[in-house]
Amino acid sequence: MRTQVCIIGGGPSGLLLSQLLHTKGIDSVVLERKTKDYVLGRIRAGILETGMVDLMREAGAGERMDRECFVHDGTIISYGDEQFGINFKELTGRHVVVYGQTEVTRDLYEAREKADGKIVFNVENVQINDADSDAPYVTYEVDGVAARIDCDFVAGCDGFHGVSRQTIPLTVRREYEKLYPFGWLGVLSETPPVHEELIYASSERGFALCSMRNENLSRYYIQCSLSDNPDDWTDDAFWEELKRRIPTEAAENLITGPTIEKSIAPLRSFVTEPMRWGRLFLCGDAAHIVPPTGAKGLNTAASDIHYLYNGLVQFYQSGDSAGIDSYSEKALARIWKAERFSWWMTTLLHRFPDQNAFDLKIQLADIEFLRSNRDAQSVMAQNYIGLPY
Amino acid sequence: MRTQVCIIGGGPSGLLLSQLLHTKGIDSVVLERKTKDYVLGRIRAGILETGMVDLMREAGAGERMDRECFVHDGTIISYGDEQFGINFKELTGRHVVVYGQTEVTRDLYEAREKADGKIVFNVENVQINDADSDAPYVTYEVDGVAARIDCDFVAGCDGFHGVSRQTIPLTVRREYEKLYPFGWLGVLSETPPVHEELIYASSERGFALCSMRNENLSRYYIQCSLSDNPDDWTDDAFWEELKRRIPTEAAENLITGPTIEKSIAPLRSFVTEPMRWGRLFLCGDAAHIVPPTGAKGLNTAASDIHYLYNGLVQFYQSGDSAGIDSYSEKALARIWKAERFSWWMTTLLHRFPDQNAFDLKIQLADIEFLRSNRDAQSVMAQNYIGLPY
Repeated sequence: MRTQVCIIGGGPSGLLLSQLLHTKGIDSVVLERKTKDYVLGRIRAGILETGMVDLMREAGAGERMDRECFVHDGTIISYGDEQFGINFKELTGRHVVVYGQTEVTRDLYEAREKADGKIVFNVENVQINDADSDAPYVTYEVDGVAARIDCDFVAGCDGFHGVSRQTIPLTVRREYEKLYPFGWLGVLSETPPVHEELIYASSERGFALCSMRNENLSRYYIQCSLSDNPDDWTDDAFWEELKRRIPTEAAENLITGPTIEKSIAPLRSFVTEPMRWGRLFLCGDAAHIVPPTGAKGLNTAASDIHYLYNGLVQFYQSGDSAGIDSYSEKALARIWKAERFSWWMTTLLHRFPDQNAFDLKIQLADIEFLRSNRDAQSVMAQNYIGLPY
Repeated sequence: MRTQVCIIGGGPSGLLLSQLLHTKGIDSVVLERKTKDYVLGRIRAGILETGMVDLMREAGAGERMDRECFVHDGTIISYGDEQFGINFKELTGRHVVVYGQTEVTRDLYEAREKADGKIVFNVENVQINDADSDAPYVTYEVDGVAARIDCDFVAGCDGFHGVSRQTIPLTVRREYEKLYPFGWLGVLSETPPVHEELIYASSERGFALCSMRNENLSRYYIQCSLSDNPDDWTDDAFWEELKRRIPTEAAENLITGPTIEKSIAPLRSFVTEPMRWGRLFLCGDAAHIVPPTGAKGLNTAASDIHYLYNGLVQFYQSGDSAGIDSYSEKALARIWKAERFSWWMTTLLHRFPDQNAFDLKIQLADIEFLRSNRDAQSVMAQNYIGLPY
């Protein structure tokens, strides 16, 4: 088989790139290790920056999103019983939207299927070969049958544990990592959200986040120990702990119910450099991870896809490789800003085991400064809605 | 002896308070452990916020300052060979001035002497008695002769090691502290400053600061190990190390010469709460210490003096104790913001022994974000020129 761009990974990054390239007549094949149902079953973030929204529209996959998403013009930050809003619209003229990553992925699958896009599921033993030559090819197996795709370029959209990053030799690749000494215990619950905006809650007992997917599907998180087991947290224990970490008013308004999903995720910051090796390009989680505070995960992937898509279009339309040659540098410049923001927001709002009394006071002073200073709020809002590409 | 306000400590805080009170006809006595020459021989910071400049004028001690000070409309931040300016004037409409703390102290002594202000030098065994009653008094000795001052209020302006803070019982007092794992090796040199503005320099080898007192008196600092001994640093070694940490252009313009002072200071953040106990009020270093990055030391003292002075005037002019009753809360609210800023600027620009590769990248991203974002620059400028009282 031959294609122009072989895309490893059928999550939202790979599908978005494939669909965007299709709109410009550039052919691609997507290889996915799992089934479509498995991919759609993964529960992920739900806040989209305007840049991601624009890409979905450009890909011709934004119709349902535009109809069903919820516009968020701001967010709430609380500490103990105190709270204040960050008004994105007033501070930046822009907003974010709530639309689950699962829905994004579903819409992209639908768009790809409508366009007869080639997606191969259940691939095993994927190998990227000769990525540093002019003639790369990808080999894989399906049901024990070997296959090969020759291509111009390979896009590595296969996540943190995928083969793409590992393909870049360790002599070339440098990795940067920070593991946070806590996790997030998250639940989904078919209850109305406690507030129309997200509440990022700092408290003496640790961080909590009140988020949502829609009017009757809430997503709540509490900072927990990495040694905790989700099975040890009863629904009652979760709700009680959440209530202790959010303002009294919110706790009183909180509608609880049975949780339909409960899991613990560790928090990690990770970046690999460079994001290009020969004709292989890393995108999204394959190249970088952010802690979820600030909702940058899918949005940083979108940023990569933006740069790669435009570079490939430039190459195929005019033979100019400037865009793909600067891909790694441009993508990383924006990624490090998002890493900085996610690290800052995580550090601002969580309890750390090694904080002394001074550190706690500085954290409080930092939150109160944010509350009191419009320019500090504007800095936060600009980062939250997404820095310009 | 009897006075209205007994001021412990004849440094700039105590003298400024004494002189300000004098302008409103409120009597005070200043007790100083050392001689006037000793106090004037101490080399300290040299950047004054507008708030401090205004207080000096209000005290009738601002004439020489207004004539001889240097207005700084901005500052330079460098990292490796990269540099950018923070333009205070453009961002905030305000500026800071360069005028050495030694000169401030000299002017205040002159003003106090002209007004026949009472300053007792060489006091020993100072004790603050009955501070939690309506009739506090201070006892001390000079040349072995015991003396006593009865007063309405005691102002503790006697620095970090003074008796005032220690007078507040440990059952009442809570202290917050952070020690940084490095020091500043500073030199004075009778050479023209390398640049008309300060250069705050981050580099792989550690932090450096190019500062000045006047056209022919430069003040340079380099981050050093706490185990370093200033005597082990030859002048040549100092200049060579400084040149390695500042941009090449600055290094080439640097005029070196013999140093006339060389010392190492540790970096510390410290706050004690509350700042009032009965009729005793803590001011300046007696209550809080900031690391020197950002030049907040004298300016935080000025902030305390502002609140205490206004509270005392309100009390003596109208019998209203609202100002002195809210002193601790108001002073601390502003102090914690200055502590936050000094901590942030120290953390942004220094090398820390436990930083990993990710931490260093985030530090770089933080500096580059500051370079690229006007609102982030505005936040920094507002803090540097001094938040409103």
